Amino acid sequence: MPVVVIHGGAGSRSADLKTCRKDYLQALSVALERAATLLEQGGAAIDAVQAAVMVMEDECDLLNAGRGSVLCRDGTIEMSAAVMRGDDRGAGAVAAVTRSRHPVLAARAVLDHTPHVLMVGARADAVAAAAGVAQREPEYFITARRRARLDDLPSDFAGGTVGAVCRDATGSLAAATSTGGRQGQLPGRIGDSPLPGAGTWADEHVAISCTGDGEEFIRSGVARHISALVAAGTPIAAAADAALAQVGELGGTGGVIAVDAGGQVALRFTTEAMPRGMRRGANISTWLL
Amino acid sequence: MPVVVIHGGAGSRSADLKTCRKDYLQALSVALERAATLLEQGGAAIDAVQAAVMVMEDECDLLNAGRGSVLCRDGTIEMSAAVMRGDDRGAGAVAAVTRSRHPVLAARAVLDHTPHVLMVGARADAVAAAAGVAQREPEYFITARRRARLDDLPSDFAGGTVGAVCRDATGSLAAATSTGGRQGQLPGRIGDSPLPGAGTWADEHVAISCTGDGEEFIRSGVARHISALVAAGTPIAAAADAALAQVGELGGTGGVIAVDAGGQVALRFTTEAMPRGMRRGANISTWLL
Repeated sequence: MPVVVIHGGAGSRSADLKTCRKDYLQALSVALERAATLLEQGGAAIDAVQAAVMVMEDECDLLNAGRGSVLCRDGTIEMSAAVMRGDDRGAGAVAAVTRSRHPVLAARAVLDHTPHVLMVGARADAVAAAAGVAQREPEYFITARRRARLDDLPSDFAGGTVGAVCRDATGSLAAATSTGGRQGQLPGRIGDSPLPGAGTWADEHVAISCTGDGEEFIRSGVARHISALVAAGTPIAAAADAALAQVGELGGTGGVIAVDAGGQVALRFTTEAMPRGMRRGANISTWLL
Repeated sequence: MPVVVIHGGAGSRSADLKTCRKDYLQALSVALERAATLLEQGGAAIDAVQAAVMVMEDECDLLNAGRGSVLCRDGTIEMSAAVMRGDDRGAGAVAAVTRSRHPVLAARAVLDHTPHVLMVGARADAVAAAAGVAQREPEYFITARRRARLDDLPSDFAGGTVGAVCRDATGSLAAATSTGGRQGQLPGRIGDSPLPGAGTWADEHVAISCTGDGEEFIRSGVARHISALVAAGTPIAAAADAALAQVGELGGTGGVIAVDAGGQVALRFTTEAMPRGMRRGANISTWLL
């Protein structure tokens, strides 16, 4: 049975989460439906995670990915994304892109149209543009909400990366993650989201998307850690908790979503909130806290 | 007892390796001595790996790191490096830098002078410059040897990344890797070397530096895979072989050097050659094939 699990970023119980509760839940539902529809029509897991992330990138500017991304210290936006396919571990990722309307599609373009896995900056946008990914002026992505925030919030505020993991009807797995990074980050900084093995991973056993304190997720190698534990027989929820505990030892918090080849899922987080949802067959669930 | 292990890149049995045999061995010996001297004076593992990599980056232009890096498809150079300290998993990395004379020092500057782990491009060079890392014009790094090669060699030729792992007198571990990437790569491409968990890793159990087909090393999450196996009790040589076997399943080849907290070492590769060396106490060994 196809399974879709998504997150809209681990973080604090913010005022937005209360004020815009319906908008968050609506975005999650649409993302789940979009991915589930694809899977029910026999679509591949990688296309489904991509579809879910596209909704969260561009149709909801509350979420920190695509339009509505948080701002760097200098008021600019730099976005990152990754996709990974479990069957052959095909992976594509982009970091510090500023023009691709859907960073997750730019990541897919790197996978499909280059011999490489990870590309950065204007060169990555150019690969995406050549593959037909819509481009926008950098200003397109900057919202009034985020501009107001840059002055208000401490630079260590963790924004809400988005992600999806799917198991398709054939049992294949895939993961995708997309982010605007960390509010107030130095331009040129890359977090865990676009790094296979840190914030995103899929193999034959498990697909994983992470959110949280990116530096600590990189230093923990969270996604590859979970996959190694799952390959050794640890249930995915226990594996996710073990990895999040290591992040905690380094002083970080965050969340993980995962699905394994048997369709078991994990939605774990060590923050106050993590907008998230799951669809398995006809059953759909969404949560904020 | 302090241990230093270094590599000068996994690759084919090239003509250079025969013609310049003495130069390769000399560079390896100097790098080992530089790191060992630091460790014998009570230096920390992270300073020792950095010292070894600095020699291979700048004092030997046969090796694909710093001056003498391979060229991108358009004839430019983009360099990447990472350092990681086992005790606290402190990590710093740079990618696609073009001006820092010692990319490994730029990586160290990200660790010491920013709240981030990975920075890319001109912003990363600027962080390094502000921290006092010497800057050069991009032309400084381009040698006649590499310029001649760009026309000769197929674009899939794997260059020779350099790396070092150390265990210091207190039992602390560290790893560093530095590279000019892959001959003929698209500008903007990032390989495994600067990615903690892919090409570089250090924790309390093991320190690892990788070399080889970067895309397959990322898709295998080689370094974090090895560390997870070692944490679960697998001896490091067996863990390195298991990870290289996974790379092989994806169609890639390469090499790994590692040292564990007990001072056991692994120098494993699936290519024809991997210039490498080890110093343990007063014993020094270097090999090319």
